[in-house]
Amino acid sequence: MTSETIAVVGLGSMGFGIAQSLVRAGHRVIGADINQTRVDALCAEGGHADDGARPDILVSVVLNAAQTEETLFGNTGWAARLRPGSVVIACATIPPVTARALEERCNKLDLHYLDAPISGGAAKAAEGALSVMAAGTPEAFERAKPALSAMAATVHNLGATAGDGSAMKAVNQLLAGSHIAVMAEALTFAASQGLELAQVVDVICASAGTSWMFENRAPHVVENDYAPRSSVTIWPKDLGIVAEIAQDAGVPIPMAQMALAQFQEAVKQGLGAEDDAALTKLHAATAGVRLPGDN
Amino acid sequence: MTSETIAVVGLGSMGFGIAQSLVRAGHRVIGADINQTRVDALCAEGGHADDGARPDILVSVVLNAAQTEETLFGNTGWAARLRPGSVVIACATIPPVTARALEERCNKLDLHYLDAPISGGAAKAAEGALSVMAAGTPEAFERAKPALSAMAATVHNLGATAGDGSAMKAVNQLLAGSHIAVMAEALTFAASQGLELAQVVDVICASAGTSWMFENRAPHVVENDYAPRSSVTIWPKDLGIVAEIAQDAGVPIPMAQMALAQFQEAVKQGLGAEDDAALTKLHAATAGVRLPGDN
Repeated sequence: MTSETIAVVGLGSMGFGIAQSLVRAGHRVIGADINQTRVDALCAEGGHADDGARPDILVSVVLNAAQTEETLFGNTGWAARLRPGSVVIACATIPPVTARALEERCNKLDLHYLDAPISGGAAKAAEGALSVMAAGTPEAFERAKPALSAMAATVHNLGATAGDGSAMKAVNQLLAGSHIAVMAEALTFAASQGLELAQVVDVICASAGTSWMFENRAPHVVENDYAPRSSVTIWPKDLGIVAEIAQDAGVPIPMAQMALAQFQEAVKQGLGAEDDAALTKLHAATAGVRLPGDN
Repeated sequence: MTSETIAVVGLGSMGFGIAQSLVRAGHRVIGADINQTRVDALCAEGGHADDGARPDILVSVVLNAAQTEETLFGNTGWAARLRPGSVVIACATIPPVTARALEERCNKLDLHYLDAPISGGAAKAAEGALSVMAAGTPEAFERAKPALSAMAATVHNLGATAGDGSAMKAVNQLLAGSHIAVMAEALTFAASQGLELAQVVDVICASAGTSWMFENRAPHVVENDYAPRSSVTIWPKDLGIVAEIAQDAGVPIPMAQMALAQFQEAVKQGLGAEDDAALTKLHAATAGVRLPGDN
C-alpha cells in the first residue's frame, strides 16, 4: 500500500485513536489540535506536528459543524492547503444540510468530500476498528480508501449524496441515546421492585426487551462503575443535533426529546463527565431507589 | 415422563399454542375458553373439553389480573377443583402485588403457585419454545416441571418470591414497548431525511442504535406488512400495568409513559388490530412522511 500524508485535525479520544491507527498503517500523519500536549503525545507515537506539508487526505475529527467549518475554511485554512484532487473525510456528527454545503465548498476548490460520521468509541478508534457511515462520490470514496482501511472495521457505503452519512448517524444517535434513557428508567423501576439488577441484566439480555445499549451500559450500573467509556456530555450535543434536524424537517421526536432533556438535566446535576450509564443515577435519586454501591 | 392432566384456561393465540405443546408432550389436556370454537379447535387436535376431571396442573393464560382471579376463585372456580398439592401456573402479565396475593390464597387451599409470565409470541407458544420468567417455591417449580418443559425453551428461575416473575416481565415490557416507540420515531425521522428504510435497517442492525424490537419489527415497516404477529392492542394493556406498578412505587417512567400514550392514540386511530410496528404509521402521518407502500 502507498504511504500517504494524512492530516488529522482534532486529537480528542476519537481523533487520537484514528491518528494512531494511521501511523500504524505506515502513513505520514500530521496531527493538529488546539491542545499542544495532544500533538506532543502523537509525535511520541510516530506522528508529526504541523510542518507545513500539503496532505493528500484530511481527516477532521472535531466536535461539531462549526468546528468542522473552521477547520476547513477558517483561520487554520486546511482546505486551501490540500493538494487539488485530495479528499476531506469529515467525521463529526453534523446536520446533513451542513454536510452538503461543506461538500459544495470543497468541490469548488477541486477537493473531494466524504461525509463520514464514525461510531464505536475510543477503544475501537485506537484499534482501527471504527464503524463509518459514509456518503460521497465514488471518487471521494476511492481517494479516502487508504485512511478508511486503516481506521475502520466497517464502512457503510450509503451512496453518492453527501449528507446521507450524517443523516444515518443521526438516526443511530436518536435510537442509541433514547435507549440509554429507557435503560436508566427500566433499571430504576426494576430496583424499586426489589429485583437484583445483575439478574435483570442476565434475563433482559436474553429477552425481547434488550438493546445494544442495554447490553453495553447496564453492566456499568450493576458494577457501580461510571468511569467514562462514553460520557454523558456527548448526548446533549448529539441529541441536540438530532432535534435540530427533526425540527427543520417538521418531524416530532418525543422520545428522543425526552431523552435529551434528561441528559441535559444530568449535566446540570454534575454527571457530565461520568459514563452515560450514570443517567440511571438521576432516575434513582428522583425515585428514591438504591442502586448497586449506594448505601 | 409421566402423563399429567393439565387444564389450560384461556385459549387465545398464546394459550392455544401452549395447549398444543402440552398435547404433543403426551399430557391429557383440558381446554377452557369463553369462546367454544377455541375449545372445539383444541379437541380436534387431541385436547379435551372440560369433563369435570380434577387437573394436576392448571395453566392460566388469560388476559390480565382480574381474569386470572376470576379463573381461580370466581364462578368457574378452578382452584377449588385442583387436587391438593397441585400447582397453578399463572402466565398473564399482572402486577407483582397481585401475584403475591394470589399465591397466598392458593397456599390456603394447599395449592402451589408459580408466578410465570411468558414471552415469545404465538409462534413460539405453538412450538413449545416460550420464554418464562418464573418465581415460586421450589415445590411450585417441581410440580410445574412437566408443563414447563413442554411449553418453554427457556425458564428463568427468579427465586422463591412470587411477584418477581411479574416484576421482571414488567421490566421487559417497559423496555420492549418503549423501544417500539423509539423505532417508530427513528424510521419516520430517517424517511424524512430521504434515507431508504431498507438500508437504514441494515446499517442500524449492525450499529449501537439497535434493539431486539428494532431488528424484529422495523422489517415489517420496510415490507409494508402489518399482519399482526403481536398487535398494537397488547401495549395499552401491558404498559398500563407497568405504569400502575410504577405509580404505586413512586417511580417516574417518562419514556414508557410517552410510549403508552402513543399506543393509546394508535388504538384510537383504528390501528389496534395491526402489528405493533404500525405505530410508525401514526408518526409518519403526523410528520407528513411517506413510508414504504404509501402513495
